[in-house]
Amino acid sequence: MHIFYTPLIIDGKCTLSEEESKHCVRVLRLANGDSVTLIDGSGGYYEAEIEDANPKRCTIAIKKKTENYGQRNYKIHIALAPTKNIDRTEWFVEKAVEMGIDTITPLICQRSERTSVNTDRLEKIILSAMKQSVKAYKPVLNPPTPFKKFVNEPRTGQKLIAHCIESDKVSLKSMVGNDSEYTVLIGPEGDFSPEEVELATQNGYQCVHLGPYRLRTETAGIAACHTINLIKQE
Amino acid sequence: MHIFYTPLIIDGKCTLSEEESKHCVRVLRLANGDSVTLIDGSGGYYEAEIEDANPKRCTIAIKKKTENYGQRNYKIHIALAPTKNIDRTEWFVEKAVEMGIDTITPLICQRSERTSVNTDRLEKIILSAMKQSVKAYKPVLNPPTPFKKFVNEPRTGQKLIAHCIESDKVSLKSMVGNDSEYTVLIGPEGDFSPEEVELATQNGYQCVHLGPYRLRTETAGIAACHTINLIKQE
Repeated sequence: MHIFYTPLIIDGKCTLSEEESKHCVRVLRLANGDSVTLIDGSGGYYEAEIEDANPKRCTIAIKKKTENYGQRNYKIHIALAPTKNIDRTEWFVEKAVEMGIDTITPLICQRSERTSVNTDRLEKIILSAMKQSVKAYKPVLNPPTPFKKFVNEPRTGQKLIAHCIESDKVSLKSMVGNDSEYTVLIGPEGDFSPEEVELATQNGYQCVHLGPYRLRTETAGIAACHTINLIKQE
Repeated sequence: MHIFYTPLIIDGKCTLSEEESKHCVRVLRLANGDSVTLIDGSGGYYEAEIEDANPKRCTIAIKKKTENYGQRNYKIHIALAPTKNIDRTEWFVEKAVEMGIDTITPLICQRSERTSVNTDRLEKIILSAMKQSVKAYKPVLNPPTPFKKFVNEPRTGQKLIAHCIESDKVSLKSMVGNDSEYTVLIGPEGDFSPEEVELATQNGYQCVHLGPYRLRTETAGIAACHTINLIKQE
């Protein structure tokens, strides 16, 4: 079943973007009357039918709507330092969306190897992973945020910082319980600095580890995302 | 601390391969007397010192040996269908080694998009990930194996097949308990065929799911690997 992302649906109809129209009509060769699935990014999942297979402005008519599709009773926010090799961050974003994530923030740290990201490209990856894994809620991608600003922002739920400095740390898995919101900070290749860990702790972040091994940044991000999902799911 | 893979250590000394010697002397610019760490792939972890910084045949003298470094009381074997886009399989191999894996088998299935792999390249990725994540035991990479042959092979421990066909399945996490060996089969992009699932079941494989979402092959592989590691670790 072909899935399209259509954030704007009015009066039971929507029009695909030029890019998606072209993909729908020229590549997938769908035609009037063919069934498709739509996701609107806000929990809406629609069974629909192609009304006008125009390769630039393909219009689609809704047959059935399901609200709150795949809604979960917990939220995951991963704030992760963008990697020097941006492929690795892109892998993380794709895998995190597949597994289930609500918010991603590129975190600019003292030892960050990279201080900017190609937001358009990451958004494309998010949409593609949403469609592939049938997620009706679109994860939010925040702009790159300096560490100090991020930890000072008020935040509800469990606040956790994963780092490799030798110290007393509990496992992330032991911190996943009844809370419905989890924010996990993942540091750059050179880890968070002691000053950053101190600042986070002062702002209510609990230090955690992700197991016995030192993981790459993007692997740590996926381990954190998967840990919370695994424990919170049936 | 720089880490080198040296499977052959005789009388407290070893010689790096030409490639590693060049990397050691020309790139890292290490010299006589510099400290390095060695891993031998069989559980040996060595603190050592450069004896002769020859860029083609760098010799190293062992100062201290730790045996059974990082030995675990459980083993993980993931048999996974190689993906059409081989990058994705390479990504899986790297992440699985980081998280902890003992054996990887490329599994050739009925709906496989790819029936061969570049074994040399995957071995390089394994070694690189071992050094980066300080694993003293080298994971075994089996040759590509047809599904029927694989499931017919006698195997100890928990045998699990993860698939997306609608049926009664328990979660992988519920199957991780006191057993010390786990084999998990991960299917290709089009999933295992019903005949393959039937054959696996006849051979004692339990059907499992990896959560509520349909994951890409390589994502499923990492989810399975991480699930077992997470539950078996403290």
